[in-house]
Amino acid sequence: MGPMERRERDRLALRRKILDAGRRLFAEQGYEAVTMRTIAHEIEYSPRTIYLHFKDKDDLIRELCRQDFHAFGTEMAKLAGIADPIERLRAAGKGYAAFAQQFPNHYQLMFMTRKPVVDRPEDLEWHDDPEADAYAFVRACLSEAHDKGMLRTGWSDPDLAAQVVWAALHGVLALHITHREDPFIPWAALDARVDGMIRLIVSGLRAEPPPVAPKKS
Amino acid sequence: MGPMERRERDRLALRRKILDAGRRLFAEQGYEAVTMRTIAHEIEYSPRTIYLHFKDKDDLIRELCRQDFHAFGTEMAKLAGIADPIERLRAAGKGYAAFAQQFPNHYQLMFMTRKPVVDRPEDLEWHDDPEADAYAFVRACLSEAHDKGMLRTGWSDPDLAAQVVWAALHGVLALHITHREDPFIPWAALDARVDGMIRLIVSGLRAEPPPVAPKKS
Repeated sequence: MGPMERRERDRLALRRKILDAGRRLFAEQGYEAVTMRTIAHEIEYSPRTIYLHFKDKDDLIRELCRQDFHAFGTEMAKLAGIADPIERLRAAGKGYAAFAQQFPNHYQLMFMTRKPVVDRPEDLEWHDDPEADAYAFVRACLSEAHDKGMLRTGWSDPDLAAQVVWAALHGVLALHITHREDPFIPWAALDARVDGMIRLIVSGLRAEPPPVAPKKS
Repeated sequence: MGPMERRERDRLALRRKILDAGRRLFAEQGYEAVTMRTIAHEIEYSPRTIYLHFKDKDDLIRELCRQDFHAFGTEMAKLAGIADPIERLRAAGKGYAAFAQQFPNHYQLMFMTRKPVVDRPEDLEWHDDPEADAYAFVRACLSEAHDKGMLRTGWSDPDLAAQVVWAALHGVLALHITHREDPFIPWAALDARVDGMIRLIVSGLRAEPPPVAPKKS
């Protein structure tokens, strides 16, 4: 490896270090409370060095969100091969919960932190693409299920349905993250709550099989 | 009003002012980030004055939680007159969402903020009392619905059921509070999401009416 390659490798390694520290600090303390100086201090570099990589805090969180939402959406799109849209939705729910448990800092930054508006949807080429945008993926499952007559009446708006399904799972994970040590609640195991919520969603949305017509005798 | 009464009235007014400022600051910045000094500064009193009312930050948040959870539980218990436990649950869900919208700071402190463990359940005489503890109220609705054969199979544990129902509604309100300005999501109206979630919960939990037996001919 020549000096050019080594320099580029070091530059990318430091960039990643800044992003990881930023994600963790934003998740722990909230976007407002963290400054570029806090992040610099955390990784023991000068603020000046950080500014060589990111123009300001908005620039940093914009890059974090782009990376994390894109990686998450791409991961979810791997479920596209499941033919039944409700089964696909069920798998997406399990994937969402697994992601929150495996990457709690990512989850908190993406879904539990108030952030400034740093991108316009039209600026992200993958926005609305079910192969890279998890919301679009869930919305597409629900739209397809509706068009195939698989949903109860009242769920013809795929945005409303996607937002309700997302919120239901988010609630389990958000309460787990903030309240898991609350001694007032005799918590069932997290897996049981996730499975229970997916069960609630599926039986709440899915049309019952039509009643069997009585045989003529 | 004599000087004694006036002094007591002023003391209580200041105590309330401290509690209100603490609730707001904890909700906005998180429990860790706020100090007794921050609260004093906010209401333009000396830290010394605040310490005359609350021993420390834990003492302050303990009192906030006691007041807010007790008031909320007592409010919810007013629905006890609804005979059908699933209808009672539906009304409780609407009440929960209305509370979050009317008192967003209370809601954030109660349900979205990581707090130290400041009380043991056995120290609160109203813990587990459905007339003052909202969790116990919801749990009792689900337990009664189960015992009356109104729930689908798989919901015999009233704690699991209560935690799933609570999480489902919490998800709607938590996403509203943190992500309502997210330009990537074409949000349906909050009321439509709350109503949709309650509909999902009820159809997800409620046993379908038994199939009508075909008439003998």
